[in-house]
Amino acid sequence: MGDLIGNAVEGTLTFAPQRAFEVARSASIPAPERVALFGDLARLNALYMIARAGSGHVGSSFSSLDIVTWLHLEELREDPEAKLQDLYFSSKGHDAPGLYAVLTALGKLPFESIHKLRQLGGLPGHPDVGTPHIVTNTGSLGMGISKAKGMVLANRRLGNEGRVFVLTGDGELQEGQIWESLISGANKNLHEITVIVDHYKVQSDARVDATSSLGDLEAKFAAFGWHVSRVDGHDVPRLGALLTELRGVMRPKIVIADTVKGKGVSFMEHTAMESDVALYRFHSGAPDAGSYSRAVNELVDSIRKRWEAHGLPNLWLETTERPAIKPPAKPPQRLIGAYADALLATVKSNPKLMVLDADLMVDTGQKPSRDACPDQFLECGIAEMDMVSQAGGMALRGLIPICHSFACFMPTRANEHIYNNATEHTKVVYVASLAGCVPGGPGHSHQSVRDISSVAAVPGLVMIEPSCEAEVPLALAHCVSGTKGSGYLRLVSVPWDVPFTLPEGYSLEEGKGVALTEGDDVVVFGYGPVLLSEAYRAAEALRGEVGVKVVNLPWLNRVDQAWLMATVGGARHVVTLDNHYRIGGQGDLVASALAVAGSRARVHKVALDEVPACGTNAEVLGHHGLDAESLAARFRSAAKG
Amino acid sequence: MGDLIGNAVEGTLTFAPQRAFEVARSASIPAPERVALFGDLARLNALYMIARAGSGHVGSSFSSLDIVTWLHLEELREDPEAKLQDLYFSSKGHDAPGLYAVLTALGKLPFESIHKLRQLGGLPGHPDVGTPHIVTNTGSLGMGISKAKGMVLANRRLGNEGRVFVLTGDGELQEGQIWESLISGANKNLHEITVIVDHYKVQSDARVDATSSLGDLEAKFAAFGWHVSRVDGHDVPRLGALLTELRGVMRPKIVIADTVKGKGVSFMEHTAMESDVALYRFHSGAPDAGSYSRAVNELVDSIRKRWEAHGLPNLWLETTERPAIKPPAKPPQRLIGAYADALLATVKSNPKLMVLDADLMVDTGQKPSRDACPDQFLECGIAEMDMVSQAGGMALRGLIPICHSFACFMPTRANEHIYNNATEHTKVVYVASLAGCVPGGPGHSHQSVRDISSVAAVPGLVMIEPSCEAEVPLALAHCVSGTKGSGYLRLVSVPWDVPFTLPEGYSLEEGKGVALTEGDDVVVFGYGPVLLSEAYRAAEALRGEVGVKVVNLPWLNRVDQAWLMATVGGARHVVTLDNHYRIGGQGDLVASALAVAGSRARVHKVALDEVPACGTNAEVLGHHGLDAESLAARFRSAAKG
Repeated sequence: MGDLIGNAVEGTLTFAPQRAFEVARSASIPAPERVALFGDLARLNALYMIARAGSGHVGSSFSSLDIVTWLHLEELREDPEAKLQDLYFSSKGHDAPGLYAVLTALGKLPFESIHKLRQLGGLPGHPDVGTPHIVTNTGSLGMGISKAKGMVLANRRLGNEGRVFVLTGDGELQEGQIWESLISGANKNLHEITVIVDHYKVQSDARVDATSSLGDLEAKFAAFGWHVSRVDGHDVPRLGALLTELRGVMRPKIVIADTVKGKGVSFMEHTAMESDVALYRFHSGAPDAGSYSRAVNELVDSIRKRWEAHGLPNLWLETTERPAIKPPAKPPQRLIGAYADALLATVKSNPKLMVLDADLMVDTGQKPSRDACPDQFLECGIAEMDMVSQAGGMALRGLIPICHSFACFMPTRANEHIYNNATEHTKVVYVASLAGCVPGGPGHSHQSVRDISSVAAVPGLVMIEPSCEAEVPLALAHCVSGTKGSGYLRLVSVPWDVPFTLPEGYSLEEGKGVALTEGDDVVVFGYGPVLLSEAYRAAEALRGEVGVKVVNLPWLNRVDQAWLMATVGGARHVVTLDNHYRIGGQGDLVASALAVAGSRARVHKVALDEVPACGTNAEVLGHHGLDAESLAARFRSAAKG
Repeated sequence: MGDLIGNAVEGTLTFAPQRAFEVARSASIPAPERVALFGDLARLNALYMIARAGSGHVGSSFSSLDIVTWLHLEELREDPEAKLQDLYFSSKGHDAPGLYAVLTALGKLPFESIHKLRQLGGLPGHPDVGTPHIVTNTGSLGMGISKAKGMVLANRRLGNEGRVFVLTGDGELQEGQIWESLISGANKNLHEITVIVDHYKVQSDARVDATSSLGDLEAKFAAFGWHVSRVDGHDVPRLGALLTELRGVMRPKIVIADTVKGKGVSFMEHTAMESDVALYRFHSGAPDAGSYSRAVNELVDSIRKRWEAHGLPNLWLETTERPAIKPPAKPPQRLIGAYADALLATVKSNPKLMVLDADLMVDTGQKPSRDACPDQFLECGIAEMDMVSQAGGMALRGLIPICHSFACFMPTRANEHIYNNATEHTKVVYVASLAGCVPGGPGHSHQSVRDISSVAAVPGLVMIEPSCEAEVPLALAHCVSGTKGSGYLRLVSVPWDVPFTLPEGYSLEEGKGVALTEGDDVVVFGYGPVLLSEAYRAAEALRGEVGVKVVNLPWLNRVDQAWLMATVGGARHVVTLDNHYRIGGQGDLVASALAVAGSRARVHKVALDEVPACGTNAEVLGHHGLDAESLAARFRSAAKG
């Protein structure tokens, strides 16, 4: 589920125009060869989209493209008159660029949308039903088979026909919901479902076997009562023959497709990883410019060879130029890096600390600790519930576990588990990264704007979000030793240009914050680097016109009432900033506390009111009225009452 | 997980005094016979506790008692000097009365606590670490193996020795977390763990096979890499021999123990169920007085026979008298019954409605609909994630699914799944019963006081809690057809004496409520039958002294600001009532809205501030300051400013 953000590739970018796909598709050659050629063209375009967007999942787009292409060219049927519609979707969703490449090539999506991956109004980073021919939204991993079952049951009830093909990852099989969903699929004999496991054996950080081995996968699926086949997912003739054969099998089916992550570009293939390199480099993010050109050369070579071997007419490829992006004036702040340093120091200092990961070791800053103190590290795989409950067991027996995942997954996937731990009055620290609405590229499944509310009421759980690198070690220290109960450390992952600094000797005090600017007309409460930076800039822009006091309140579910009243002072207007939905964020905390204290100030809540848009960071902040310019307008109008 | 509430049995109740256990334990007879006798004595006391409390799980206390007794008498070791401690806990937790019977008999818990099951300061309905020798808290099902893994890993890290025995249910195996947790247990070879499956093949409502068959359980566990054995869980000699033998097996172990639900009392044994009776009657609640006496007679007969066969001295049994409880003056309101009627009418009227259950068909009011419209009913088993994601798939394909479970499980176990569905902008209805802090007997795992906050921010999800039977069909209709998006219907399950009535022609309007009493000093906002009834009584008690306007605001995450300001009017004090934690309930909603509107009223929030206590309903409400008397005091002090 990792979603590291890279930089858009500059210079010349190459893509195959729709015409090339049409020629390939209508070529009078055997289906497997047609599919292989079409699939390689799609790889080129998936890579183009990711390079242009600056992020996306190359590895799993490439691994699945032979399968996805075969399904779309040879297998999926649609006949509205017969109420027949076969469906395909990916449960993991990482492979969206590959799917988009196929759908745009087939004219099922406007072809020009290949230029708009992860842009506002373009193609979302992960699947969303707002895009034509996208069947379902992905969330965290493991939901796909359940969703397919619901679709099939609805078809049966409504008299519709159709099969459902679901692609899953293999790391995804560590999620318990997969096994939960298999049980009734067999009992109800939902034979319309074919699950294809994109089994490339490498997950977000490392090899599946090194993360949390799946053991004898065939035996597992068979024991759950599903029909199991296995095939090389890049041997298109065999793959096609198998899928054809399976049409006659009236049982729910699983195809384990042995694939290669990054298939099609030699140095992106996971099998090219050196044995001592544990981490695969092309899971997410974009390749650098050099890797990009080498990959394009390889893909074009492969396409050209197939093209010529089949005697097809001239191969057209097109290019666009990407101007160089001006590097930022000063290096942005990286809270994950600061966290990685703080964690390392903390873990080294206390042998009772345990670092728990759910396959996001790199993205969430655990690698230095894992490398330095491997005995204090537990890789749980993509199994958030299991991780959090294991942490609960550890805490009961004397350890201080620190659980890591993305903010969109951990408190929502293991929601009850966090509460259950809290009812035992032990200490568990939850570090939730990738918080908030930016980066905007991955889309709403990765834009965590509901996590605060989802666990804020957990008794004894203190939630903190640091505003800058300097505040990160203080926040971690507070979670580990500054509070008796459990802690939730919410971290923005995207590097950010933070214009403010905390005062000398700044320390954390539960429920209290610190003013970053001074002003008497409007008092603004917020947290985290993104909105505080935008608010700071807005306050600067309004200087002389409106006096804005921007306050960093790093506490997400605690506020000291006396401090709050003193901070608001005589100001008639308070603005709260939430990098979160309007309900249940810090805005409600502050507003509610002011109402309880009998404050006369009027509160203006700035927050998200709809599912966050996918796009560049600037687009997303602007769209939701959270950029400096929008905030300045809000502060100005608030001051006017 | 069902927890139907019955009535305490009146008349003569029988229990075995500690002395009887001591005699049995020290008898010079073979271990299996000692265990069988001790187990039957424990059954008598478990039944006593449940009869006296008026609720508890007889069936699974009885099924597991031979196992639990063997472990405690023959298997568990403790030696602090050697840093050695074997642990036992139940992952399902229903069997707590049986475990308490053993622990009190062994003097590990004060013996007199057998008279205080489900009472404040007594033994909680489900396990809680606040009770001596209780190893972990249960939440919803499926967490136990994960927790055991954490304990073993902590032992290893801290240089402690000890095995962990975990009892699971079999319906519990439908939870995906079980399978999630098995994966790393095998990979890390956590041989210290022995999981014993209490495999009686009947779950909350019906047979496991009829609910969601587990298929070839042995093959499943074996495929997950665990050492699997199978034994008759009531054949004490074989059970003991197996556990002894397993000491030498250095792999993580699963014992499938074939048991009989209700074992030890002929008519409580699930095998005595008539073939056309789908629903087992002794899962939860208390037996009626007649069943109780017959059961006691059978158990005493069995004990006496064993006692005499072993030539033990006189058998002492003791009795207590329970006075008759005065029946209520008028029948209480039953919101689940009203819901069952409303659901039936709704389902019959619309063939696109689907009723989805997670093994709580009876407790949550689905049975009439299931019986009348079986084609519109889907039993998902204890698999909330799968249920909610299946519902998502159904909604995408044209159905309107209505998901059912307890409020403590559905929005927390399937938290992200509810959100994921919402991002697809379809309509799914979630009906969450057993909401709030009463019934107080089952304990905090079943007292749902965090569910509102856990999903309130989900976009498009309208949350409603009806205050009385009459409001239930209106609320369901609103969820199904009154709002475009999804709906969350929160239902109090405990029958309640509701003193107020809604006005003639009352209808629901989103974000608006209705005054139940009139007064100008304090305006009280609340929801649901429990707190509104208490508040109504408090207002009546204060009549002439303090003018209290009690307002039923059934909306949990929506409030109309203009209506709110008009309703508060010139009152200087507002009280909010939450059958929920202080953070993220309706209190924050109302307080925040008043702050945004610039109201001058001061808000006083009444809510839970700590994990809810276990006890009788009156005890729990009193303990948390939520009964009429406490509320009257709060209203009075609020009025004084």
